[in-house]
Amino acid sequence: MVPTPPAALVLADRLSAALASSVTVPLGLDLAAVAAGAVFGALLALRRALDITGVLGLAIVGGLGGGVVRDVLLDQPPVALADAAYLPTAIGAGLAVALVGHALARVDRLLEVVDAFALGLFAIVGASKALDAGLGPVASATVGVVAATTGGIACDVLSGQRPHVLGPGPIYAWAAVAGSAAYVAVDELIGSVPFAVAAAMAATVVLRWLAIHRGL
Amino acid sequence: MVPTPPAALVLADRLSAALASSVTVPLGLDLAAVAAGAVFGALLALRRALDITGVLGLAIVGGLGGGVVRDVLLDQPPVALADAAYLPTAIGAGLAVALVGHALARVDRLLEVVDAFALGLFAIVGASKALDAGLGPVASATVGVVAATTGGIACDVLSGQRPHVLGPGPIYAWAAVAGSAAYVAVDELIGSVPFAVAAAMAATVVLRWLAIHRGL
Amino acid sequence: MVPTPPAALVLADRLSAALASSVTVPLGLDLAAVAAGAVFGALLALRRALDITGVLGLAIVGGLGGGVVRDVLLDQPPVALADAAYLPTAIGAGLAVALVGHALARVDRLLEVVDAFALGLFAIVGASKALDAGLGPVASATVGVVAATTGGIACDVLSGQRPHVLGPGPIYAWAAVAGSAAYVAVDELIGSVPFAVAAAMAATVVLRWLAIHRGL
Repeated sequence: MVPTPPAALVLADRLSAALASSVTVPLGLDLAAVAAGAVFGALLALRRALDITGVLGLAIVGGLGGGVVRDVLLDQPPVALADAAYLPTAIGAGLAVALVGHALARVDRLLEVVDAFALGLFAIVGASKALDAGLGPVASATVGVVAATTGGIACDVLSGQRPHVLGPGPIYAWAAVAGSAAYVAVDELIGSVPFAVAAAMAATVVLRWLAIHRGL
Repeated sequence: MVPTPPAALVLADRLSAALASSVTVPLGLDLAAVAAGAVFGALLALRRALDITGVLGLAIVGGLGGGVVRDVLLDQPPVALADAAYLPTAIGAGLAVALVGHALARVDRLLEVVDAFALGLFAIVGASKALDAGLGPVASATVGVVAATTGGIACDVLSGQRPHVLGPGPIYAWAAVAGSAAYVAVDELIGSVPFAVAAAMAATVVLRWLAIHRGL
Repeated sequence: MVPTPPAALVLADRLSAALASSVTVPLGLDLAAVAAGAVFGALLALRRALDITGVLGLAIVGGLGGGVVRDVLLDQPPVALADAAYLPTAIGAGLAVALVGHALARVDRLLEVVDAFALGLFAIVGASKALDAGLGPVASATVGVVAATTGGIACDVLSGQRPHVLGPGPIYAWAAVAGSAAYVAVDELIGSVPFAVAAAMAATVVLRWLAIHRGL
């Protein structure tokens, strides 16, 4: 471990550049997305009767999967590995669900709410990081959609289910499209990150609510 | 969005370098691969009775998935995000299938033909980009195989099917191997891209035809 | 193929840097992991009654999948493409299993042993390369776990099975966690690579043995 190899220097430089570039969306929003995604994965594991290994596994995959794929698409080192707060956030959220989850009377309902928030948060952070990386509006919204849907797809595949993202039934991917597009549109047209975050969350949550309760 | 972060500059430099390096295979061939892959994904979604969300979702995955994984393996930013023509090509192909697909009398037969062309085109572009990136012949053919098979595997997994790439039944992966190997061999030995493209397409399509109609 | 594009130069520089940085864990250990993972994948394919395409396919995925994802997470070009020894190692191991596999009386038992060794070897190389790349101890152990479990997950998904990594049943992911954590702990605290390798292999194999034979 003594000699510092060239590759480590290169990676360290790129890590600090990647961290410094996250100026528009606060770190807390990404960690909130991680927590929401991890709670979603852990609840899904409970509903599918997985044991503690499955609960923690899906918490990590649901909390970190979308962000890792997002960073790989942006050709950046995954912030989930570079920042020490990410893994404990996902594991902590998974442990919390494992402890209190069985006492929850209506896991299905909670799952829907957490899912909508995770979807919106990952769409926002994904679109924002893509814009920061210099991608155009359509590509940035695409990254938001991929970041928002990947964690759930991976949880479905790992627990042996057909991914629900492709339907049929309540539209899911469209809420991620609406949230990502709303973020990019408000950010590009108005230039305000807080307004863009609010518009994206509103679009995602309203669409998910309509999808589930109005059969849209 | 005001200050240009260092990471954006680095990414922009690498994007332009990546785009400039695509000299041997014309961009049109990659977009043809995207269109064929998207038509394949959309037809697969129709055959599996998915709704419009599923048709568009599998069109995007089938059209862009193989290329994104190829570019990640080559440690390049995905051209599907860097070039604005890719996503509309995939969505347009998916929409076209959604509009006329139900009128097609023989989806299965069309699926086979489109699949063979997508397989050959992705093998060609994958092997060519890998050679351009400085990889050796075996590694370049491997990238071609991965690029050619990934979109179909992802479509199968997302629609809840066991990936057909591993058989049993008509050999599928071997057509990708033959196409990629033919491209690399002709390119390296003769040095002609048009001949390499023709040899690879011929190898892939003939092997698929033999596999389906002669039970090879 | 005549003009050397800028991207090739960049990739070549990064390849040589990445290769030069692999100083702490000998290359042979990574190739042993590839061989063990390939034998695991091929045996799994035999048990699931796949044909020769499936045996070779799962040998390649089981042998190279974990390392490719590891290198992508570390933002390095996959060594499986950069080094010409990797693909032949995986294919050779798969062919060997295809030739003698049906004569093996107890595939299940052999599968367990090979699986434990593949798990430990991939955990060691993953954690070691992550430490070399400048990641912290927790992130490095995480990379080890991902490298160790990804090949098996991909083999399960490709052969249409629910991934066994999430249980229920004998704990699997925990053996990878123990091996990766043991490697990082011994490497960081004692600074000896041979001791770290021994500790990680012991932790992984003992935990797998306990899991299978003591129902842990």
